[in-house]
Amino acid sequence: MTDYTQILVDKADGIATITLNRPEKMNAFTNVMMTEMIAAMDDIDADDDVRAVIFTGAGDRAFCAGADLTPEGGGRVFSDPTEVEDLSDERVRDGGGRLTLRLFNSTKPLISACNGVAVGIGATMQLAMDIRLASDTARYGFVFARRGIVPEACSSWFLPKLVGIQQALEWCYSGRVFDAAEAKEGRLVRSIHPQAELMDVAKGLAREIADNTSAISVSMTRAMMWRNPSGDHPMDAHNVDSKAIYRLSRGADAMEGIASFLEKRDPEYPGKVSTDMPDFYPWWQEPEYK
Amino acid sequence: MTDYTQILVDKADGIATITLNRPEKMNAFTNVMMTEMIAAMDDIDADDDVRAVIFTGAGDRAFCAGADLTPEGGGRVFSDPTEVEDLSDERVRDGGGRLTLRLFNSTKPLISACNGVAVGIGATMQLAMDIRLASDTARYGFVFARRGIVPEACSSWFLPKLVGIQQALEWCYSGRVFDAAEAKEGRLVRSIHPQAELMDVAKGLAREIADNTSAISVSMTRAMMWRNPSGDHPMDAHNVDSKAIYRLSRGADAMEGIASFLEKRDPEYPGKVSTDMPDFYPWWQEPEYK
Amino acid sequence: MTDYTQILVDKADGIATITLNRPEKMNAFTNVMMTEMIAAMDDIDADDDVRAVIFTGAGDRAFCAGADLTPEGGGRVFSDPTEVEDLSDERVRDGGGRLTLRLFNSTKPLISACNGVAVGIGATMQLAMDIRLASDTARYGFVFARRGIVPEACSSWFLPKLVGIQQALEWCYSGRVFDAAEAKEGRLVRSIHPQAELMDVAKGLAREIADNTSAISVSMTRAMMWRNPSGDHPMDAHNVDSKAIYRLSRGADAMEGIASFLEKRDPEYPGKVSTDMPDFYPWWQEPEYK
Repeated sequence: MTDYTQILVDKADGIATITLNRPEKMNAFTNVMMTEMIAAMDDIDADDDVRAVIFTGAGDRAFCAGADLTPEGGGRVFSDPTEVEDLSDERVRDGGGRLTLRLFNSTKPLISACNGVAVGIGATMQLAMDIRLASDTARYGFVFARRGIVPEACSSWFLPKLVGIQQALEWCYSGRVFDAAEAKEGRLVRSIHPQAELMDVAKGLAREIADNTSAISVSMTRAMMWRNPSGDHPMDAHNVDSKAIYRLSRGADAMEGIASFLEKRDPEYPGKVSTDMPDFYPWWQEPEYK
Repeated sequence: MTDYTQILVDKADGIATITLNRPEKMNAFTNVMMTEMIAAMDDIDADDDVRAVIFTGAGDRAFCAGADLTPEGGGRVFSDPTEVEDLSDERVRDGGGRLTLRLFNSTKPLISACNGVAVGIGATMQLAMDIRLASDTARYGFVFARRGIVPEACSSWFLPKLVGIQQALEWCYSGRVFDAAEAKEGRLVRSIHPQAELMDVAKGLAREIADNTSAISVSMTRAMMWRNPSGDHPMDAHNVDSKAIYRLSRGADAMEGIASFLEKRDPEYPGKVSTDMPDFYPWWQEPEYK
Repeated sequence: MTDYTQILVDKADGIATITLNRPEKMNAFTNVMMTEMIAAMDDIDADDDVRAVIFTGAGDRAFCAGADLTPEGGGRVFSDPTEVEDLSDERVRDGGGRLTLRLFNSTKPLISACNGVAVGIGATMQLAMDIRLASDTARYGFVFARRGIVPEACSSWFLPKLVGIQQALEWCYSGRVFDAAEAKEGRLVRSIHPQAELMDVAKGLAREIADNTSAISVSMTRAMMWRNPSGDHPMDAHNVDSKAIYRLSRGADAMEGIASFLEKRDPEYPGKVSTDMPDFYPWWQEPEYK
């Protein structure tokens, strides 16, 4: 699927860029956009040449101004007039959460290049990414309590994990919009950059990963880090990393890692995520909506 | 119950203020104070007019100087001379924990306005609040290891969640008293203010919530944030927020949220926590002491 | 066991210091070093006179430059040429994780005095310590993705807990080496000191604990803090701290804590970890490798 209508997908030099592309609507989120972003992630995850993914918004005003509430946008309130009684029905599932759960299962590093306004799902979708960069024009808002709804897209799981519960509650209780400096102070974003330099910084970060590391190592690291922290005991990690070290240290990427290190040259790791992940991967079962 | 003897409860303009009121004893904590604080929370949670709660201490010296260890104060050591053998007996339960578990189950935002010394339970009770403000005269101490006991009031759960385990351990291992600046640097408190301005800042924060947000949204957000972060997978959040978005986006507060937004006017949300929470609330079962 | 060959163990004034001692190899980690560190921890935990443990590296260049990959060092790749099929076999277990799990179960506070280069296991072993100090010459690297392997020593559990997942992923994705200032900014280390003063600061911190606190209080605090934060509900803490307060407030250390406080003198706590921990300790069951 490459006939996207609300996003742009670019791949170059091992880096994929997904651009939310409704600039005339401040890139407001729709069901179509959700479907296209998930399809793009499926495509990217299947492409071993891509080593990192950058997300940004078209135009210089917005990353994403939230859910498009107009009928055209397929806004939540209007999208499904049929009332569902059973709340475990698939049709009840939040669209923002469908997206962030897909991002959660990415096998590539995800970098957000937030180039402007990011409110509602425009803010919460970034929480499921790995590293958040902000332009000096970025503004964030977890505005749900000002709309009579609640934080969605699994943000009640992601946000306290990223910024701590005191900061998460303050932003969500007030629902106010805040600037990049406050986002950085609160540890939501990693760093702030002039808008004109934002994409270069994001690409530099992606470049550093692509040029120096094993794709299998990075993909395993991503799964281990996101899935382990909430476990009860470090033995949860030991059960996984022991097996990973055992298998990978006997693999081709480790040989290349040591060889290139000793020979003081750039590495060229042969391992591919599509075919060469260790035999016990994945070691978890994905939960289902219930 | 309004005949409080060791606390003051004030309600005005949608904000409740609970003042620990034994200034001659530096507001030291007693079993009576615990019982009164829990009763005040029950009263406040049942009052839909209250949108936020502020906690402070009477006088300008102390927020709360810890447990009153004198016989008059009903200190722990003297309070129950009858030895209990079965440690799962209800009488074994820590009084500080009874209070913080009650705060944990609040349906309103809790703001601490720490106006002076806060040691022992005076410090740990604030951990179960949502946002902590400090006067420039505030001082904190997790002094338990200097008294031959341990951090109580569920603080081994709250404190690492708020400040990280490195900072939590350092404060608890040393047991030393530290100032507001260190508390801010360690992310225990959100901000520091001149003592004379502290209550105004706290009220301003409460005001912003009360004036702009849906009580149902805020109450749902509080439960979702505090109860989700330690889950193993973002699906735990998706299971809840999908249902919440589904129900609330069809509700009166969402209609008012959109209408007031489009009409550029202040919102007046009709929803009440006492009667209008979504049908699946609460979605959890409270654990019992064992 | 005191015939250590790759570490030095010093005990003085209630403080034990473990020095990684292969300065000519930048204190690179070996199976022998792992075994000796675990033995030293067993010895120290059994010694009631020791109140805190400091870890540092011999020489002024390195804390520990990572796993020694040479045959002499017993590097992973070469250490066990016999392929094991069953990944739950004990021989599959990661050596770094054996060490950090032993540190996790320490009954004493663990302080890292990182005096230089700390990469790979040299960095990850410090994550299981309680408080990390850095010299201004310290450098850290979670370099695993540049070697074709993954973060080990349970670091996928420890690192996000200490520095948050955004920072953890950035350091592990890039695999680059960074300095003490970045480590402090990222909350990996508590403070930075001139190399010549590093050990004095570490000893001062240990001294403050040893001079002012009950060993039983500190040991209980350590177990409660590390084991509770990931629990689902503060009741998990209440179940433990209620029992601890109940038992300890009737004990000799609490009597001495109150007496010394009221008499304004230095305390001398009689309690010993080897014999006087409360009867319900330990309240957990250690998981096994599987």
